[in-house]
Amino acid sequence: MARRCRRLEGEVARGALARAEALLFDCDGVLWRGEAAVPGAAEALARLEARGRRLCYVTNNSSRTREAYAEKLRRLGFPAAAPRQVFGSAHCAARYLSRALPPGGAAYVLGGAALGAELDAAGVPHLGAGPAPAPGHALFGARAPLEPAVRAVLVGYDEHFSYGKLCLALRYLLREDCLLLGTNRDHRLPLEGGSAVPGTGCLVKAVETAAEREAVIIGKPSRYMFDCVVSEFNIDPARTIMVGDRLDTDILMGNNCGLTTLLTLTGVTTLKEVEDHMASDCPERQNLVPDYYVDSIADLLPALQD
Amino acid sequence: MARRCRRLEGEVARGALARAEALLFDCDGVLWRGEAAVPGAAEALARLEARGRRLCYVTNNSSRTREAYAEKLRRLGFPAAAPRQVFGSAHCAARYLSRALPPGGAAYVLGGAALGAELDAAGVPHLGAGPAPAPGHALFGARAPLEPAVRAVLVGYDEHFSYGKLCLALRYLLREDCLLLGTNRDHRLPLEGGSAVPGTGCLVKAVETAAEREAVIIGKPSRYMFDCVVSEFNIDPARTIMVGDRLDTDILMGNNCGLTTLLTLTGVTTLKEVEDHMASDCPERQNLVPDYYVDSIADLLPALQD
Repeated sequence: MARRCRRLEGEVARGALARAEALLFDCDGVLWRGEAAVPGAAEALARLEARGRRLCYVTNNSSRTREAYAEKLRRLGFPAAAPRQVFGSAHCAARYLSRALPPGGAAYVLGGAALGAELDAAGVPHLGAGPAPAPGHALFGARAPLEPAVRAVLVGYDEHFSYGKLCLALRYLLREDCLLLGTNRDHRLPLEGGSAVPGTGCLVKAVETAAEREAVIIGKPSRYMFDCVVSEFNIDPARTIMVGDRLDTDILMGNNCGLTTLLTLTGVTTLKEVEDHMASDCPERQNLVPDYYVDSIADLLPALQD
Repeated sequence: MARRCRRLEGEVARGALARAEALLFDCDGVLWRGEAAVPGAAEALARLEARGRRLCYVTNNSSRTREAYAEKLRRLGFPAAAPRQVFGSAHCAARYLSRALPPGGAAYVLGGAALGAELDAAGVPHLGAGPAPAPGHALFGARAPLEPAVRAVLVGYDEHFSYGKLCLALRYLLREDCLLLGTNRDHRLPLEGGSAVPGTGCLVKAVETAAEREAVIIGKPSRYMFDCVVSEFNIDPARTIMVGDRLDTDILMGNNCGLTTLLTLTGVTTLKEVEDHMASDCPERQNLVPDYYVDSIADLLPALQD
């Protein structure tokens, strides 16, 4: 049956929010853009929390720790959140590796300091993460000795990604018992003013092409992030709303996991894109259609008045 | 009709070599491996040339100039070749850009000094190529001023590939009138002893993912390299043999261009792979089956005796 997307307002909004026990929020494009909170978003979340709703934060960004997200929420005036309410792809990747790695196994990491910190917090031995660029000759990666304990390559957002690191990753992945894991497949990170920088998905593709195999992906639309939320808070999918600004990550994961899905237009998606998917006969495109949309999550405020 | 692949020997070999006017050779894995010539290969080429056959060299490698290939052929004892007999993906990309760029247009290049030299030889203004790693802060590419003349991004083999360069490439490609060109899609460059380093295809994939569009590919299996040979030597496809060690580049290009195709097993392909493609019902896999195979091009010597 074709999915329909309706504006969430009036009685429909009151009903949906009354039934929901938990709401999962993507962050960038939903709660804030860069360092500016979406006007009214903090107030909407405060009212949801005052009514006893469980709030969680689910983000593909691997360049911040759970603690850094909790601190940013506080800084921008959102209700106080504990780090354990934050499910970033760095934390979830560390969680995955803490279960998937054999005893004594370590991860070779393409990523920044936050990814390293989350691996430390999960007790996962690792090398490669952090701000230092790859040392010395550009081809060091073709020659450097390999660490025998490495049983996984983890690809996250890495501003110091280089051909040398790609060489090292390939050499580890030529070992058949070496996992390939990516934090997410986002193509781009949009900047204000229409520009953008390359997302982690570009780096994952480079490593997958060299390794000639597909990575396990942690971030949305993979259901692993939702599984992490469930294992920590035991929420009921049928009474959970996923709120996001991207159809191919937030909404797709929500639809795949049986959540109610709500698109907010403060981020990268236009209503026209939703309409095009709705008009399509392709089941994959139908799966990108959210149940509801709002211009901004501030539009929830009237439905949350006493 | 299903393609059949036969060993090229005896009368069949004499007939095929008698009909051929021109032979196109891939180099690495066919004529040499690293710095070691395939035993007997130089003698086979000398006899072909003595019988008036046109010999050309067609390689996806973008890290050497035509001159450097001519010099390597000489150094390893092959018949003297003029640079114009060599069709590397660096030269062919430069040729493509010299026609495709608008007047005053320049190329932003991810690649080495040889790629820069071939662009110079073709009169194509360019920036970015060469051995110097990207300068300064890892995110320079997100902030550096853009060169207004750039109308193409050219991705070749680049040992100094970095996130910063990827940022710059994306920013140029956000201009709608900016071409995206890749020298080739090879996933890996095999090293002696079973190891490998990542090929240009990994870098092309990273840029394509960021730019959200597909690159024009110069190298095999694209027919553009064959078109370059034809425009220089006016050879007849029906009387040309493509000799290579890779099914998905050398043999596929040859089959697509109507050439006779000859696989040599001195490189990366096994006969088992050919047999698996022959047994497949898939037309795309059938297209990877060569007309003939030899263990080594030295096997052509008996058919070239007086």
